[in-house]
Amino acid sequence: MTSVLATSTFRAIDVIRKKRDGIELSRAEIEGLVNAYTNAETPDYQVSAWLMAVVLKGMTRAETAALTDAMLHSGDVLDLSSLPAKKVDKHSTGGVGDKTSLVLAPLVAAAGIAVPMISGRGLGHTGGTLDKLEAIPGFNVNLPVADFRRVLATCGCAMIGQTAEIAPADRKLYALRDVTGTVESPYLICASIMSKKLAEGIDALVLDVKTGSGAFMKNEKDAAFLAELMVETGERMGKQVVALITDMDQPLGNMIGNALEVIECVEVLQGKGPEDLRELCLELAGWMLHLGGASPTVAEGKQQSAKLISSGKALDKFRQMIELQGGDAHVIDDSHRLPQAQHTVRVASAKSGYIASMQCEQIGTACVILGGGRERKEDSVDPSVGIVLHKKVGDRVAAGEPLATIYYNSEAKAARAQQLIDASCEIADVAPAKRPLVHRIIGQTVGNSAEKN
Amino acid sequence: MTSVLATSTFRAIDVIRKKRDGIELSRAEIEGLVNAYTNAETPDYQVSAWLMAVVLKGMTRAETAALTDAMLHSGDVLDLSSLPAKKVDKHSTGGVGDKTSLVLAPLVAAAGIAVPMISGRGLGHTGGTLDKLEAIPGFNVNLPVADFRRVLATCGCAMIGQTAEIAPADRKLYALRDVTGTVESPYLICASIMSKKLAEGIDALVLDVKTGSGAFMKNEKDAAFLAELMVETGERMGKQVVALITDMDQPLGNMIGNALEVIECVEVLQGKGPEDLRELCLELAGWMLHLGGASPTVAEGKQQSAKLISSGKALDKFRQMIELQGGDAHVIDDSHRLPQAQHTVRVASAKSGYIASMQCEQIGTACVILGGGRERKEDSVDPSVGIVLHKKVGDRVAAGEPLATIYYNSEAKAARAQQLIDASCEIADVAPAKRPLVHRIIGQTVGNSAEKN
Repeated sequence: MTSVLATSTFRAIDVIRKKRDGIELSRAEIEGLVNAYTNAETPDYQVSAWLMAVVLKGMTRAETAALTDAMLHSGDVLDLSSLPAKKVDKHSTGGVGDKTSLVLAPLVAAAGIAVPMISGRGLGHTGGTLDKLEAIPGFNVNLPVADFRRVLATCGCAMIGQTAEIAPADRKLYALRDVTGTVESPYLICASIMSKKLAEGIDALVLDVKTGSGAFMKNEKDAAFLAELMVETGERMGKQVVALITDMDQPLGNMIGNALEVIECVEVLQGKGPEDLRELCLELAGWMLHLGGASPTVAEGKQQSAKLISSGKALDKFRQMIELQGGDAHVIDDSHRLPQAQHTVRVASAKSGYIASMQCEQIGTACVILGGGRERKEDSVDPSVGIVLHKKVGDRVAAGEPLATIYYNSEAKAARAQQLIDASCEIADVAPAKRPLVHRIIGQTVGNSAEKN
Repeated sequence: MTSVLATSTFRAIDVIRKKRDGIELSRAEIEGLVNAYTNAETPDYQVSAWLMAVVLKGMTRAETAALTDAMLHSGDVLDLSSLPAKKVDKHSTGGVGDKTSLVLAPLVAAAGIAVPMISGRGLGHTGGTLDKLEAIPGFNVNLPVADFRRVLATCGCAMIGQTAEIAPADRKLYALRDVTGTVESPYLICASIMSKKLAEGIDALVLDVKTGSGAFMKNEKDAAFLAELMVETGERMGKQVVALITDMDQPLGNMIGNALEVIECVEVLQGKGPEDLRELCLELAGWMLHLGGASPTVAEGKQQSAKLISSGKALDKFRQMIELQGGDAHVIDDSHRLPQAQHTVRVASAKSGYIASMQCEQIGTACVILGGGRERKEDSVDPSVGIVLHKKVGDRVAAGEPLATIYYNSEAKAARAQQLIDASCEIADVAPAKRPLVHRIIGQTVGNSAEKN
């Protein structure tokens, strides 16, 4: 109604109205909004209205790429061109017991590829890589960029948290989305993930997009949509990107909780550990080696990764990285050096049969209740608590046999967690159909991408 | 994702998510949000996200009534039960040259009905009743509630602006909607209008819902939808409500601008004035008299209103109200006591023919540019400037003959206004089909409501 009076400068209200009315925004309009928000010229209340319009009206691929680009360039982009190795990272959309990063960074680095990994903390029912690393006494995830480069140059991998310089627009937008019901948009999720990952200065990226009861994307269709969006956005920005849609209908591996998950990762790097975790690590490592140019096919990348584990080279890298980041590497040989919960209690099965399904999100929530995760960003985490599953989906269980062991420091919290775990396991007379670990692979038709195992 | 951890207290995020997902909100949830926002417990950025979800997902009738009720009860509701007369008000959704309130308040009061009118200011291309009244030297629209009651009891009508005590939730929500692209929702417009009007303690309400190029609702379908929503909401709250869908495809009357519109209203109250304005005033007054119990039918209400004008009683009421509210009532007899623009200039027609259409919003914008309206709430208004139309839609015009006269104080502004007026009049070889003044009547099947003239 005031179009005749409008000036030619950027006005947030015009961009909000256009998105509300389903009109495609230009790159300049999206850049204008992101920059004005980052510089605090446009207030939260205008951006939250725009975010809700994006959630309900969607974005085109061009808009999504423009948003990612604007968020990426709201801060510093690491220039790792002085490192001769190819730079490859992996990102997971998050799940329960999802600990592959701790295995992959040293494993892929052992193959001569640089892995500059910038990770997040757990939120809601999912765990976070930084919380797991901090279970290792002394491990510093807040390295300055110069130290991050030095660790990366020395051992080929380094793992830190997001710095203030990287994608500040994303940090601000994410905090706002979290409190305005605007997290659940594939376009916004894509821009958030890709802007941070591309700020790492990487050449290639392997995405682990989770689907199932413990994932943010409960069904495969939504997961595949997000995966395609991220692959296309990365490719538009000149990067090699592949996405694996992987199963999160039950926890990955047997251990959930920060110190417990470090133990399980060490087991995998020792050639042991639960089959599903080991298999997914090899699958993702195979892709990372392939995209990083260390192996001609994914299958060969997997074989090479298995050898780097059996030779002990991957574990050596993990030890080296822990030491370089100030951590106590002796935890690898003596897990008692990790924080220990005071008590344990078993959850016994009420009846006999097969584990038909697990409400994976509830198991993650049980761990949060124990103190192992955080509901709000400002909450602190107890690294010692968690859950060890003795049975997984498809396993036989007898009445009275333990389903899980809870590691806890508070009786009241343990009682609530016990109830949740108990209620989350469905026991049936017949074994359920087996769900594949990798549902689909999206992007990268090069090499042997159609091969899954 | 944190449902297991949620407490039972009101959480804005839950209400936002429900509306985003298209789930109907309960009365308690809507009240919770309105109260938390009014008390500044819920921040702007959460409410703006919710508002955008309402714009894009809509509301049920029950939700709309609950929102109206919560906004109404966010502040004081006038108790006028000590006044023996029936209390009836009129509200217009706004237009260009829409000045009927200044005629209707004294005219209907002259019939023995109390008219407690709480009005607004102009925004965008539309004028506002308070700005028009303030063109009268000394007229005080900011009476305390006690004085408002006294004026009302003494002369039967009183006209003021919204006080801090009335519907504070609406004031806060409206300011937020204005800057977040969330004005354009019939549900939010309905709740905003009805919460303020019902706070006046009235028995009945006549709504003048404008449609056409100068209205907020450009097409009749949208206007009728809003009208039905308001009528139903008012009826759910136990009030008699009728809505007239009236034409705003060209300005109402010939004069646009605050002092000029006072002159035109005096003309109508003197039994003169342009036909369309006089006719609409009689139509609305007929309904107000009918709903107020002063006449058995709308047609008789119109006749009675015409008599109150010809007898001079309506004009006497206007004079009395101006005096009681501190204004200079001599403006009625001498229009030169109103603020005078320094210059006038005529806009001549470029060609001969019939006025086929007028871009009514552009004519309103021309008046804003002259200084007669405001683009932002904090802008001040120049009461002296404006436009007098010499031709209306359907009139013959010869090349060089004046279409309008501009009253101005700035050459530069006059030049811009002139261009806009010139561009807004379409001249054709044949006379256009005549649009009705009253398109439709919604609500109130009592009396002779089907009768239009």
